[in-house]
Amino acid sequence: MSTRVRRLEERDKPVWHTLYKATVPEEVIETTWARLMAGASDFHIALVAVDDQDTPIGLAHVLFHRSTWSPTWYCYLEDLFVDPARRQKGAGRALIEATYREADARGCTRTYWTTQEFNYRARSVYDEVATKSVFVQYRR
Amino acid sequence: MSTRVRRLEERDKPVWHTLYKATVPEEVIETTWARLMAGASDFHIALVAVDDQDTPIGLAHVLFHRSTWSPTWYCYLEDLFVDPARRQKGAGRALIEATYREADARGCTRTYWTTQEFNYRARSVYDEVATKSVFVQYRR
Amino acid sequence: MSTRVRRLEERDKPVWHTLYKATVPEEVIETTWARLMAGASDFHIALVAVDDQDTPIGLAHVLFHRSTWSPTWYCYLEDLFVDPARRQKGAGRALIEATYREADARGCTRTYWTTQEFNYRARSVYDEVATKSVFVQYRR
Amino acid sequence: MSTRVRRLEERDKPVWHTLYKATVPEEVIETTWARLMAGASDFHIALVAVDDQDTPIGLAHVLFHRSTWSPTWYCYLEDLFVDPARRQKGAGRALIEATYREADARGCTRTYWTTQEFNYRARSVYDEVATKSVFVQYRR
Repeated sequence: MSTRVRRLEERDKPVWHTLYKATVPEEVIETTWARLMAGASDFHIALVAVDDQDTPIGLAHVLFHRSTWSPTWYCYLEDLFVDPARRQKGAGRALIEATYREADARGCTRTYWTTQEFNYRARSVYDEVATKSVFVQYRR
Repeated sequence: MSTRVRRLEERDKPVWHTLYKATVPEEVIETTWARLMAGASDFHIALVAVDDQDTPIGLAHVLFHRSTWSPTWYCYLEDLFVDPARRQKGAGRALIEATYREADARGCTRTYWTTQEFNYRARSVYDEVATKSVFVQYRR
Repeated sequence: MSTRVRRLEERDKPVWHTLYKATVPEEVIETTWARLMAGASDFHIALVAVDDQDTPIGLAHVLFHRSTWSPTWYCYLEDLFVDPARRQKGAGRALIEATYREADARGCTRTYWTTQEFNYRARSVYDEVATKSVFVQYRR
Repeated sequence: MSTRVRRLEERDKPVWHTLYKATVPEEVIETTWARLMAGASDFHIALVAVDDQDTPIGLAHVLFHRSTWSPTWYCYLEDLFVDPARRQKGAGRALIEATYREADARGCTRTYWTTQEFNYRARSVYDEVATKSVFVQYRR
């Protein structure tokens, strides 16, 4: 059975807030929520995987940005999170597949994301739907 | 002696084209050039490291994009390239430092880039100015 | 509940053979069995995790070898295998802990093993009982 | 021009000691030297790359040990070190190639070694003569 995925809506805020356990200050979370709702083209779209009661059990925040290597767009899946109590049922995979559909709808030439090397549970899913690149990330 | 870095200009096109050995079709290169010159806020800025004759010997294409984890911006150094005949003289480091200054000017909360795991020569420089993250990248 | 671990014995051969799904020719398996039973000091010891009927459900082949960095020995856990149908019950961890006890009994100054980077299920256990080193392995 | 490699000899001790900058207590170094000179089959052989005056400029300590995956032996290159002032002239590669010859002479079915992930200078040589495996190392 595949999980249904839809766009995040205003009424989802309490559940979104619970799911989005960011380790950032509350004001950043409020800013992110406001930007998600504003729907400007330079910010992420938000997708939610929902259960039978249409309650979000997982979320994906997806940014489309320009690349010097693409005439169209790159699709960056910045956040992917599923309620720990609702995992291993396909919600993560459904969110990735919905992200792919959004990328395809915009003609994106690449969809990508990063994850911690030791995030084994997530990587076992990612290995099935994507390819681990040979790129390592540097940060200041 | 530190290398001078400045913004890319129209007159740099022939040298930029030679430096930017992208493995993408010529039309993408033309599109990228046009976008760099247009200077829209959703596209990369281009920095060049220049020699004493003000001729570019290296380039950096830098994108500022929104993040769900930042009230301001993230700074993504997508391309960093130095003429092989002019390497090991600090041009790469000068371009990264110039990128940091651009990021600081915009209040970016993160500056990052990726490189191939086996790009040893570049990584020996990156290790001195940044931190390798524990993140691995997945792609479709 | 902890799994019991004991030394491999002659009567275990049929089960050992089934567990030891080496991708090597049958003759190598026979040679390995003969060497395990011979018990020479330059070959591995074999430990088995057993169920309530004393039937092996997992095995460990452990070599003690000299090192230029140790006055005593290094302990190399070359094979660690648990029947897929009996996993996630602690047999792997029990085998590692028994290996540690054997290493301690010989005064080994290091116990180590390798695993494929993408062997997530095993690594989630290894992360709890050991430390991933920063070493990568080269082979001819 | 290829570097000459020969077996370590008693008279090499002062140079060997200088080259072998182990971060282990002096007593371990003495034990290692004594074992190298004793030449027992369960300990490493020592190879040295020498300059025109037959003075060692680099060393390799190589252990042959049993494996459950081999009817013969595995060859483990535990230490490979070249005087920093004499690098980039082929001594490291010559020592690896001499190790391969020793392994072949014993019918070893694998020759391997490990190195720190960020040891870029060494890895650029290793990439030319061997293959990086997908194995990561765990240690207690």
